[in-house]
Amino acid sequence: MPKLNDEQIVDSWHINAEPWINAVRNGQIESRTLVTDRAIIDAVLSYAPRSVLDIGCGEGWLARAIASENVDVVGIDLIPALVDAAQRAGGGDFRVMSYAEIAAGQLALTVDAVACNFSLLGKEAVDELFRSIPSLLNPQGKVIVQTLHPISACGTLPYVDGWREGSWAGFSTEFSNPAPWYFRTLGSWAALFVNNGLRLCEIREPPHPKTRVPASIIFVAEKIA
Amino acid sequence: MPKLNDEQIVDSWHINAEPWINAVRNGQIESRTLVTDRAIIDAVLSYAPRSVLDIGCGEGWLARAIASENVDVVGIDLIPALVDAAQRAGGGDFRVMSYAEIAAGQLALTVDAVACNFSLLGKEAVDELFRSIPSLLNPQGKVIVQTLHPISACGTLPYVDGWREGSWAGFSTEFSNPAPWYFRTLGSWAALFVNNGLRLCEIREPPHPKTRVPASIIFVAEKIA
Repeated sequence: MPKLNDEQIVDSWHINAEPWINAVRNGQIESRTLVTDRAIIDAVLSYAPRSVLDIGCGEGWLARAIASENVDVVGIDLIPALVDAAQRAGGGDFRVMSYAEIAAGQLALTVDAVACNFSLLGKEAVDELFRSIPSLLNPQGKVIVQTLHPISACGTLPYVDGWREGSWAGFSTEFSNPAPWYFRTLGSWAALFVNNGLRLCEIREPPHPKTRVPASIIFVAEKIA
Repeated sequence: MPKLNDEQIVDSWHINAEPWINAVRNGQIESRTLVTDRAIIDAVLSYAPRSVLDIGCGEGWLARAIASENVDVVGIDLIPALVDAAQRAGGGDFRVMSYAEIAAGQLALTVDAVACNFSLLGKEAVDELFRSIPSLLNPQGKVIVQTLHPISACGTLPYVDGWREGSWAGFSTEFSNPAPWYFRTLGSWAALFVNNGLRLCEIREPPHPKTRVPASIIFVAEKIA
């Protein structure tokens, strides 16, 4: 097992679930309140899905936002404390489930759109999950992924796929054990879709209003008929 | 007409054709000799086309390299001095033709692959050309575009589509009147393909061996059946 790995991401979220719920619900993450929350909602709704699966839904804000537009939403997260919070707030059907369980076919449903909002930060867990994405989509179904933009996120490290150290810089002192994350180049992201029976339909790069640099990247891909 | 425009690109190439032929044939452009020449050859040949149309072929080096692998190659360029040089060196069927003429259907052929190597640096001329690309492709035909990588090429200017001033920095003093070029974000490149009946198949980001930053980006897209 490498020094940084998928399990540490899960460990970190078990530890940080409560401060995360507070940070999200109190609007403490500037890039989200200024840019990326609206960007993922707009991207999902622009394809007018009647049903959405929110993978890595956390405390459920995105599921609630989409459900408020008369869309059926199922939210999946591995962390019981986050799913608990989501269930209490309502607005969707929230379940505790791992990416491995989804990949193993334990989620018996299909939807018009799968949404993943900053929830694909691992390596093997994400690769495995992606192989099952087409089976979760209705014909012409879309998968909409918002993640760190390779342009903004590479920093001074080499532009190659690899694990990166995490950080809670800018967050409150209640956070600890930052999760590592797996950097993917643009070419690797494209391959993740194309090699799993998905066709890239659109790339959005919502600009941060202060820096004018993309605050994130949103990939939209379609199940190939 | 904006201050920087497509016509200035054409004007610049008319003026700089001779020094360009020398620079290419004498291996004077380091990024090309170290990285991007090999990258576009490999990308094109990886799809095993039997016929290739090289749009913006210049003095014909790429056409010759591909033709040497038993591929039928037609090369198109607007600048007669470049096409002359290509014809004298042989290896393909080279013709003087503008992107507007291609867009108007004056090139009565279809190929397995269209290659564009750093030849899509304009705005309207490129947008117009792209509308005709599917009509030039056989079923499952590919278009393979190598261009400036938005990551490396944006520099300190805002990450938005727009005309940029050109430069011959690093080239010999024989060059003058640098061509402006039209910066496209990643999202805009993706839209250029998808909105013209093409499906993105692959993105390659050949790294520069010295900086380890992508020296270019190569988009591969396929005609949707």
